[in-house]
Amino acid sequence: MKDLAERAVNGDDRAVARLITHAENCHPDLYEAMRIIHRHGGRAQVIGITGVMGAGKSTLIAEIALEYRKRGKTVGIIAIDPTSPFTGGALLGDRIRMSRLTMDPGIFIRSMGTRGMLGGLTGAVYDVMEIMDASGKDVIIVETVGVGQAEVDIIKIADTTLVVLVPGLGDSIQTIKAGLMEIADIFVVNKADVPGIERTMAEIESMIDLGHRPGVRKTPVLATAAKECKGITELVDAIEEHREFIVGSGSLPDRRRKRYEAELVEIIRKRLMTMIFDEKVFREKVESLIGRIEGKETDPYSAAEEILDGLLK
Amino acid sequence: MKDLAERAVNGDDRAVARLITHAENCHPDLYEAMRIIHRHGGRAQVIGITGVMGAGKSTLIAEIALEYRKRGKTVGIIAIDPTSPFTGGALLGDRIRMSRLTMDPGIFIRSMGTRGMLGGLTGAVYDVMEIMDASGKDVIIVETVGVGQAEVDIIKIADTTLVVLVPGLGDSIQTIKAGLMEIADIFVVNKADVPGIERTMAEIESMIDLGHRPGVRKTPVLATAAKECKGITELVDAIEEHREFIVGSGSLPDRRRKRYEAELVEIIRKRLMTMIFDEKVFREKVESLIGRIEGKETDPYSAAEEILDGLLK
Repeated sequence: MKDLAERAVNGDDRAVARLITHAENCHPDLYEAMRIIHRHGGRAQVIGITGVMGAGKSTLIAEIALEYRKRGKTVGIIAIDPTSPFTGGALLGDRIRMSRLTMDPGIFIRSMGTRGMLGGLTGAVYDVMEIMDASGKDVIIVETVGVGQAEVDIIKIADTTLVVLVPGLGDSIQTIKAGLMEIADIFVVNKADVPGIERTMAEIESMIDLGHRPGVRKTPVLATAAKECKGITELVDAIEEHREFIVGSGSLPDRRRKRYEAELVEIIRKRLMTMIFDEKVFREKVESLIGRIEGKETDPYSAAEEILDGLLK
Repeated sequence: MKDLAERAVNGDDRAVARLITHAENCHPDLYEAMRIIHRHGGRAQVIGITGVMGAGKSTLIAEIALEYRKRGKTVGIIAIDPTSPFTGGALLGDRIRMSRLTMDPGIFIRSMGTRGMLGGLTGAVYDVMEIMDASGKDVIIVETVGVGQAEVDIIKIADTTLVVLVPGLGDSIQTIKAGLMEIADIFVVNKADVPGIERTMAEIESMIDLGHRPGVRKTPVLATAAKECKGITELVDAIEEHREFIVGSGSLPDRRRKRYEAELVEIIRKRLMTMIFDEKVFREKVESLIGRIEGKETDPYSAAEEILDGLLK
């Protein structure tokens, strides 16, 4: 495991891929690798991209990645959107587009499937981020669907978060109201060739104006047509500008601290849940308690108490 | 707290509402109420409804609720979709439609906002379900957006899960591929008045045929036009049929057991996280460790180990 980590930090992408698989499978020796990985990380720029299904996020990510490549940067892509073409949900047209990325050794793509209740999808994301970071990727792009709580949590800890909307989708405005407003560092209205773009942009801008306080950075709204590769340079410029803004305003360390806190929470959660549900002695206890809950001899709260009593100091 | 529980199990909806608020806020004495609640629950039929944004889920839920009322049943609705009209994301037209529900004392609606990382949105859902169940609601409808892991977990434990799609949405098929296929007990193609309905239904049916094994129940596909109240009777008939099927095949207890297990996991998770992040002694430890992680004096895995060493037997 240590050997894999050493190879990963030296930029060996096959070692990176294997380590990521170990992270996804919660390999018991993973921590040995992550100790080494952590020492070499902390340099990558993390971009979170979220938005409704059908907004063209994956195509947009492909174009952003290619633009960063033009600027001489290496890119890691993490797709945790189950409907993403990166995750295998792709139609043929998307797959062909994606192959432009997969041929480039400067781009590393990893899609993460959904897992069971204890499997720790979100947990592994932090590990994957750290591994890509330590392996020398300059930019890491994380793609999620911006509606689940877990996804919102992840996106919150990016250096820069893009919220992608499309014109004419009545839900766009609802989505913004529903909490994406506060996590967006940049709004992107993709599919700028679709009718209704002006109205959608005006709606978003007036909503931003409503919530705007003087002296605070105003969230920019950009139009792109990712399929036609329009507006991408401007978007990447805006990402870079935001990055300079958070570095200049001193809020980058805050964002980093939040990320480490979230990672710590997740590791602890995973360790405890693995202990309770995988170790035979606890597993048997849990099963007998569930039987008693069903039979109304006990209730879930008292059962939880009983398990914790056997566990905690 | 015990008094509130006693009143809730006697069908006092104001007590129900107050208990739910305590559950959402993780009130430290909640367990006292939940012990009583649990003894009175386990009778309600739980229907999960998931699907993409803009599929008209909320209107569909409203119509299903009204149909169950016609059949003499009381209904509880839990909306954990942040973009749902139930959750306040509603446009005016939706609000008017929803008011038909809120006037009926036989329908109890609760929308749940998203919470912070430790706040336990999903956790409270189990409590809310148990509270509504114990208070005598015959049918409980849970609405989620079917893309986040947490949402999928919740929907998995319903007695009957509806996956709602709309015609013409290219994403529909991707959505099915992306894992909703296995959780759907019934597919609903809503907005049946929109062009493309036949094609969408044919696509879904052929996909079901592909994965169909002889001797296994075949997932039905129904068309509805919720706004025009079309297809609702047939849909509720199909839900009842599915309910009879799981009762007859003996799989209802399995679904219930899964629900209790998920609830137990969530209570334990919440308790441990509250302990680690709210109790002063741990909170200080966590903050100092995050500083050391940032400074690369330690790494998240070693830090987690240190916290657990202070916690576990």
